[in-house]
This record gives sequence, structure tokens and C-alpha cells, in this order.
Amino acid sequence: MTTLKISDRIRLATKQSPDHRTVVEVGPHKVGGEDVIVIAGPCSVESRGQLMETARAVKAAGCQMLRGGAFKPRTLPYSFQGLGEEGLEILAEARKETGLPIVTEVLAPGDVELVEGYADVLQIGARNMQNYPLLRRVGAAEKPVLLKRGMAATIEEWLGCAEYILNEGNTGVILCERGIRCFSRVTRNTLDVSAVPVIHQSSHLPVVIDPSHGAGVRSLVAPMALAGVAAGADGVMVEVHPRPEEALSDGAQSLRPPELEELMKQIRKVAHAVGRGVQHGAR
Amino acid sequence: MTTLKISDRIRLATKQSPDHRTVVEVGPHKVGGEDVIVIAGPCSVESRGQLMETARAVKAAGCQMLRGGAFKPRTLPYSFQGLGEEGLEILAEARKETGLPIVTEVLAPGDVELVEGYADVLQIGARNMQNYPLLRRVGAAEKPVLLKRGMAATIEEWLGCAEYILNEGNTGVILCERGIRCFSRVTRNTLDVSAVPVIHQSSHLPVVIDPSHGAGVRSLVAPMALAGVAAGADGVMVEVHPRPEEALSDGAQSLRPPELEELMKQIRKVAHAVGRGVQHGAR
Amino acid sequence: MTTLKISDRIRLATKQSPDHRTVVEVGPHKVGGEDVIVIAGPCSVESRGQLMETARAVKAAGCQMLRGGAFKPRTLPYSFQGLGEEGLEILAEARKETGLPIVTEVLAPGDVELVEGYADVLQIGARNMQNYPLLRRVGAAEKPVLLKRGMAATIEEWLGCAEYILNEGNTGVILCERGIRCFSRVTRNTLDVSAVPVIHQSSHLPVVIDPSHGAGVRSLVAPMALAGVAAGADGVMVEVHPRPEEALSDGAQSLRPPELEELMKQIRKVAHAVGRGVQHGAR
Amino acid sequence: MTTLKISDRIRLATKQSPDHRTVVEVGPHKVGGEDVIVIAGPCSVESRGQLMETARAVKAAGCQMLRGGAFKPRTLPYSFQGLGEEGLEILAEARKETGLPIVTEVLAPGDVELVEGYADVLQIGARNMQNYPLLRRVGAAEKPVLLKRGMAATIEEWLGCAEYILNEGNTGVILCERGIRCFSRVTRNTLDVSAVPVIHQSSHLPVVIDPSHGAGVRSLVAPMALAGVAAGADGVMVEVHPRPEEALSDGAQSLRPPELEELMKQIRKVAHAVGRGVQHGAR
Repeated sequence: MTTLKISDRIRLATKQSPDHRTVVEVGPHKVGGEDVIVIAGPCSVESRGQLMETARAVKAAGCQMLRGGAFKPRTLPYSFQGLGEEGLEILAEARKETGLPIVTEVLAPGDVELVEGYADVLQIGARNMQNYPLLRRVGAAEKPVLLKRGMAATIEEWLGCAEYILNEGNTGVILCERGIRCFSRVTRNTLDVSAVPVIHQSSHLPVVIDPSHGAGVRSLVAPMALAGVAAGADGVMVEVHPRPEEALSDGAQSLRPPELEELMKQIRKVAHAVGRGVQHGAR
Repeated sequence: MTTLKISDRIRLATKQSPDHRTVVEVGPHKVGGEDVIVIAGPCSVESRGQLMETARAVKAAGCQMLRGGAFKPRTLPYSFQGLGEEGLEILAEARKETGLPIVTEVLAPGDVELVEGYADVLQIGARNMQNYPLLRRVGAAEKPVLLKRGMAATIEEWLGCAEYILNEGNTGVILCERGIRCFSRVTRNTLDVSAVPVIHQSSHLPVVIDPSHGAGVRSLVAPMALAGVAAGADGVMVEVHPRPEEALSDGAQSLRPPELEELMKQIRKVAHAVGRGVQHGAR
Repeated sequence: MTTLKISDRIRLATKQSPDHRTVVEVGPHKVGGEDVIVIAGPCSVESRGQLMETARAVKAAGCQMLRGGAFKPRTLPYSFQGLGEEGLEILAEARKETGLPIVTEVLAPGDVELVEGYADVLQIGARNMQNYPLLRRVGAAEKPVLLKRGMAATIEEWLGCAEYILNEGNTGVILCERGIRCFSRVTRNTLDVSAVPVIHQSSHLPVVIDPSHGAGVRSLVAPMALAGVAAGADGVMVEVHPRPEEALSDGAQSLRPPELEELMKQIRKVAHAVGRGVQHGAR
Repeated sequence: MTTLKISDRIRLATKQSPDHRTVVEVGPHKVGGEDVIVIAGPCSVESRGQLMETARAVKAAGCQMLRGGAFKPRTLPYSFQGLGEEGLEILAEARKETGLPIVTEVLAPGDVELVEGYADVLQIGARNMQNYPLLRRVGAAEKPVLLKRGMAATIEEWLGCAEYILNEGNTGVILCERGIRCFSRVTRNTLDVSAVPVIHQSSHLPVVIDPSHGAGVRSLVAPMALAGVAAGADGVMVEVHPRPEEALSDGAQSLRPPELEELMKQIRKVAHAVGRGVQHGAR
């Protein structure tokens, strides 16, 4: 694979040779390996019932991991902020039942120890991409980190943030493109699909794509997920909700379970077209 | 297919029902039909030799149309501005030999009559997207129009420009997403792949994707072309040059003939994965 | 004044020494000289009555020039497109009565001869900034040109367009910053006030600022006009309408005559604070 | 003053009547009152000598407050990260000698108690604008907060962050526009001067402007500072360094002491032109 130089200042995240690739292991799954993975789940853990119902649908569709927010960064202090530790417990229960590893966000250095006790992957959200004390703290954690790109972050700045984590000794960094802020009025953000090959040509780290936040419109999620896989993404992260119209956050961009199932079939086909498969789901 | 509402003010370009699709015929090819098409060729027609060599490679790779600029809009008046009518004659000669229909840009209302005498598809470049006298004039032409999206154009503004052409009676409008201007430092522009499903859900017009201008970096062209096809694009337009390092314009983003051939194979696979094929090439 | 290098490729528009300045003469007024000028008038010439009433208010407020569009570039073909030659005749009549020189837009190379017969300054709109055949044609005209910056244009691209005009022999180029497209939801565009000192430090050409299009909201026009003057703009161009709520275009951003009068007083004060005055109005 | 509605969801930061204004007191100074204030100092506290020399120059120029970073958010972990508590001690010493209140950044909730022990104003940087745990924590602090706008933040999102602080009971919020990310290649960011009148028309909170980060080029700092004051900014924050070429961060955009002195004179004139003065400096 071609090598693209971003910056001499990026040391640990830079690709050292054309075939240099890092594979991040999450439970039985490998992110950045031959096959792609799909992470699905609700924006927020809203209740035990909602999460368990979603987790079963995620497993049934053949996805590899479950996402769900217990600590939610919201534009206003009056919006639902997540269930906190209770949400983490519900996530752990869903893992126990379904076998799906858990991806969940952590917002503050002081919460890392707590979240790490439940999560399989620590998510750093777009708003916190350059929260350096938080990056350093998850860099010292035992769990892999999914690092979302900030809405105005250049590739160099994004890799610089990965560098903070790697520099603390945590080698399990998964990058996630989730849309950048441009002038679009139709989509919530502009999913920068080109970030996928740019990362693969400049860094050894795996990169997944989040078409739910990238598009912000349900009907655009599937085509953008497929675009990401065709461009080489190592995985897809999508929001799913059994009843999106009742969701406490991000309902307009959440797939319904049958839509997720349909999407998984399409992802398999496109992955196959670019010489990859989809990993086995949870057993 | 889902329907997405952009604006009540877009009358002729708006989709009237979920299955409403316009197929634009160009010679033996159908743009917007079941199968995708690939338009390839140099940024500029530089010489008879360069163009004929490229045209043969484009045909050999199985592409459906030949692109090449005879009138070039350049950032500075001192740059190569294209061969003008001589370039058009060379393009016509290439069509005669290869059978490939010609896509070429027209810059001014006063040139439309001339260019129409040679071209099969009249291209309106990104810089001229809102050149309304030019849009009206090509709206009165007998040839289909490929309308590139302006670098800062919203979807509504882009469809508004299609509306100018349709309103003059020309129903053969092909939209082309070629990247928007955002803050990227690595890519020349940001290819807005989401424009493809947004157009398909809001308009009946076909849409193709131009990953060469969108990315501006050769190694990113193939993954972005595949992303476009996976997202549903009706075609791909790419720049090819037998010796990119000698190109008078856009060398850094031009594929070499073997790379085009390889890309065609990949496009076939991804098109197949989303339930489409690639049309037959020129005979 | 400091010198800032934009590009070696910009030859004619580049400042050759710290004090290199071009002064463009328009009737009795000097654009780019010691004092600032104010160009005011409606977005579109809608009727003889509307334009004459506005022209008198513009003169009474002490402005130096009258703006008004006879050929209007509109997002959709169904919107009011301007009165054409009739609008030009009305503008000429207003000049005759008030003594105010006329600034008006030209959209196509084929219209330049006609518009030049009426206008004192030929305006190239933002959408046409890179309409090179049009730039070449106004470069061959006898009248000065006001060149608006395109919504996605870098400083280098903008100066490249000035270069096209200068290269044809027309030395009377006035640049106009009118807002760029960013992610703002409150303002119509983002007025890039920094373009004013950037142009002054890199080019000898005068630059004026258009806060009406830049902000798109009436209450923001005055503060942004003052910001432009404080940053060193050689002039301000504002939209005025006697009854904005009845305007056929841009009503929401048009000042009423008393607001224009008040703005002129404030501009005088800020111009004075940065060591300049406002030129005498029409006699 | 006109009232502009941003969102019904912004409760505490929204202007309730045309004259509703909050004045934030910092030592003897009032931010958001009749007169403007100037905050100056180095990007980073690099050494006792550098800071004391700068502080004396800041005082001599007649500025009202001293800025300087002890905890620095940097793109890469290998860059100078600030002196930490030692930097805070040096800042306190400078305050003792000069009487200038201190504005300094805090990066993590766990550092607020420490920083609050030294600072007069707690700065939240652009990268941390949406670091909600940090916002909540400074919302519970006894010191006023200077909240910088994020690079991709809409006005609503910015006010939403102010809302987090206000909602915890801290009424001393000063907003700071420091440039947004757009496509500019000449300036580091695009200073959105229009944010100043937008904030004044929609919120009661004071707003200052940071032309150093906004422009990123020394020669542009003064014109952009004046633009901000002309647009109604309640203050200006600028970077100053005795020897910018030796600065460990932001040297290219730092003023030298004589340039600061000259700028203060110009700010006085422009403030006067818009009916304001500059507050008395430290005694």
C-alpha cells in the first residue's frame, strides 16, 4: 500500500513501512485485521429494557460489538446526560447475556477508572479529541481506545491526539471518522470518507467510520457505511434504537433493527468486493 | 428508495415519487440506469499524441466515455489555457478512432455553439456552476450537460443550477460531485460522498463522482472512486495521463493507464456488490 | 506598511514595495487613497420610483457612489432576475440627478459593452469571480472593475482573478470582501475582515468591504462596516432600501435610509480614528 | 440595542431585554462595562525572567490584565507543555509586582482548585470548550471564567457551554472569540468578528476578541484588534513576547512590547470613536 507523509512530528502513529499495520484485539475480535467489524447500539443507554432489546438485535444482526453511552456530552445542561454508573452496569449485563464487547464513552480523567471497570473499549468523543489530560489518562489504561476525530481536526491534529495515547504506553488505538463541520445544511456533518485511505496510507492504526453522526439522517446511514467500507474502513459504528422516535438522543439518525440487519448484508457484500469479510459475530 | 425534501423551490429537478429516475443517454450509454459508467481522460488535451494514447488506454480499460479539456479555467492567466478548437478537433478524432463519446468543458455562452459541434456531453465546471447565462445557454443546447458542484455550493444551490438548465428545455442533466472546500490540508478538496445519496433521495437526476479533483492525490483516487460507487453513484469520472509527471495540469492526481485498468476491475466488483454492473465499453 | 507574501505566481497584483498603492479614480472619487468611500444602494433596481428615492437618500447621507443591480444572479430561475437594460437606464437617470457614479453588475462577456455604456464601475459578483472569459472581457473595458471575492476563494485565487483583469490592461481593479462560506447558521456568510489587512500587505489594489452580504442580517451591518473600516478598508458597500420589507431581493439585510445616515456618522468617526476621512459626497 | 434570537434552549445566557448586560468584575476592572479592557501577555510562561519582563511591558503599555499559560494544550505530546504550578507561582509574583490580575488556562477538572488559588480569571481554551465536566467544575469556582469559542462551534453551541457554567452558579462568564476553522491558507484561523455583535444582540454576557490566535500572523494582529473594538468587543486579548523569535510557542503571532504600546494608542482612538474608552491600567 502507498505511503502518504503527514508530518515528521508524528512519531508513534506514523506508518514505518507499506505493510505496517496495527491490529487491536477486543475480546475475540481483531480491529484492523483482514475482516471488518461492526459496532452497533443506541446513542445513550436509556433503560435496561431499551438496552437489552437493542443488544439482542445487534447480536442477531451479526455485529461484533455493542456501543452505548452512559456519560453523554450534550450541547445544553438541560438535556439527558446519561445514566452514569447505572448505564455501565446495564451495558455489562448486556455483554454477559450476548457476549458482545462494550464500547462506551468516558468524559473525564477522574471517570476512567470507573468506566474501565465495565468497558471493553474506551471511547473518546469528538468534543474531547484534544482533551489532553483525558488522552494521557486513557493512555495509561489497560483497555483499547476508540478516538473520534474532532469536528474541525486536521489529520495531523488527530494523529497528534493518538500520539498522546500511544506515548503513555497504550498501543490499542482505533481511530474513528465521524464527520467534520463544513457548510452542509442537509447533513449534520460532512463525513470525510477520504480520511480512511489517508489514515491507512499514513498510519498503521485501524480506522472505523461512523455514518450515523456523519450524516445525521437515517436514510443516509447505509450508503455512507458502504462508502466507508469500500474506501477501506476497518469497521463501521452505527446507532440503532428499537423505537427511534422515542430515543432521548439522536433518534433521527438511528437505524431500526431490521434496517441494521439489511445493512449487515450489504456490508458483507461490499467488504467481499474489496477483498475482506466481516468477522464472526458473538456466539 | 427514500425521499428527502430539499426545498419547495426546486421544481423540475425534484423527485416526484420514490422510483422517479432520469436516464441520460450518451451515444450507446445510459447514465442513471442500472449500470454505472466510467468517464476517463486527461485534465487537458495537450497534444494529438498525448490524447490519442490516453484514449486508447481509456478504451482498453473498458471505460464508457472520454474526458479532456480544450478550454481550461486556470487560477492564473499565465498557466496553460488549453488548445481551444484544436483540442476539440483532436477529441473528435479520438472519438472516431475509439468510439468513445466525448465530455468536454465549455466556459462561455459564446463558445457553446462551437463546443457543441464536437462534444457529446457539455461540461460545466465547478467555478462556473452559478454562471447563469452559461447555464441558460447550455439549457438550449441539443447535448446533455454534466454539471459539476461548486466548491461552496449547498445541495439546494446545485439543484437550483440544474433547474436553470432544465427550465430551458434540456432534460439531459448529469450532476457531478467533485469535492467541496473545507479545512483539509492533505486533500485538495473534501469529496462529499454523502451528496450521492442526498441527490438520489431528493432528485431524479443521475449523479457521478469525480475522485480526482475531490482528493487531488493519486493514491486516494481509487478508494474514493469505490466509495462513490458503494454510495450509489451512477458513474465515476477520473483523470488519466500516460505520463502524469509531464502533465501540463493536474498531474499529481492523474492515474496512469495500468492504474485505470486496475481501478476498473475494482469498480466492477463494488458495483456488483451494490446490485449494479458496469456498462459495456466502446466497441 | 508590512509586506506579506502570498505567491510568486501573482505578478501584477503583488505589492512591489511597502508603500505601493493603486488609487482607482471613479468620477471625482479616489478609491484606495487617503479617504474612504461608501457605495450604497438597493440590491436590485426594482422600479424608477424605488431607485430614485434610494439614490436621493444615498446622496443625502453623504455617500460617494450608488450601487444597484440590473442583471441579477439568482439561485433559482423563477426569482426576479433584474430589469436588464431598463434598469441601466434608470441608474443613468439617477446619476444625472444626483451626480453619484454607478456601480452595477455584469454577468456575461456579451453584456459588457452594453453595461459599460451606463456604468461607472463594472461589478463582478462572487459567483462569477472565476468566470475567466468575463474577467478577460472586463479587463479590456474602459471602466474600473469591482471584483468580489468568491465564497470559497483563497486570497491567492482572488488575486489570480485580479491578475486576469490587470493582464488585459485594465489597471482599475477594486477588490471587495463580501463574506466566505463557513459553518455559520446565524449569519448568511462569514465576513472575513482579515482579508482587508491581508490584501493591503500583499497587494497594491484597494479593497472595500460589503457587510450586507457578509452578515445577511440588518442589525449586524453597521458593526461589521465599522470593523472593516477599522481594519483599513478603503470603502464600504452597503445595501439600502426605502422599504426593505417590500424588497424583491435581500430585504433582510438592507438598511433603511435613516440607518444609512446614522452609519455614515459612525464611519466618519472610525475612519478618523484610524487616520482617514470620508471623501466628499456628490455635489 | 437590537435583540437577535439564537435559540429558545439557551436560558441563562440569553438577553432578556435590549439593555440587559452583565458586567464581570476582575479586581478593579469591569469587563462588559462602558470601557474596554486589554489582556496581554505571552502564550506560555517560559521562565521567571521572560514573564516579569513581559508583565512590566504590559503594565507600561496601560493594559488591564496579564495572560500567560502554565498548563498548555499542545498538538503533540513532545512540545513544551507549560511549567505547571511553577508557572502559576511566577504569574502570582508578576501580579504582586505589577498589580495586573492574571488570566490563565485550566485543562482538567482536577486542576481547577490549584489554578483557582493563583488566577483571577480561569481560561477555558478553544479545544476544551465542550469539555462539560470541566465547565461544570469551573461553574462551581469562585473566579470568573473566560470561555473561548471552539474552532467549529456555532453560536448556539458556544452559548450552550456558557449555560453549563452559569447553571452551576458562576455568573462571571466572559466569552472570547478567537477564530474559527475555515479554508484560509494565509491566516491560522478566520477571526469571526461578526460573533461580537451577534453575542451582544443575543446574550447579556461580555465578549472579548483574540486577534493573535484569530490571525496567527503578527502584522495582522493590530488591524484585527481594532476591527474587534469597532464591532463592539468589550476587550482584546493579545499575545506579547519580549523576543518572539525565541518563544516556545506562538512566536509568529506575538507582538513585541513597542508594538503593544502602539496598539494601545490605536485601541484608545477606535474605542473613543465608538463611544467608549479604555479602562485605567494597573496602578
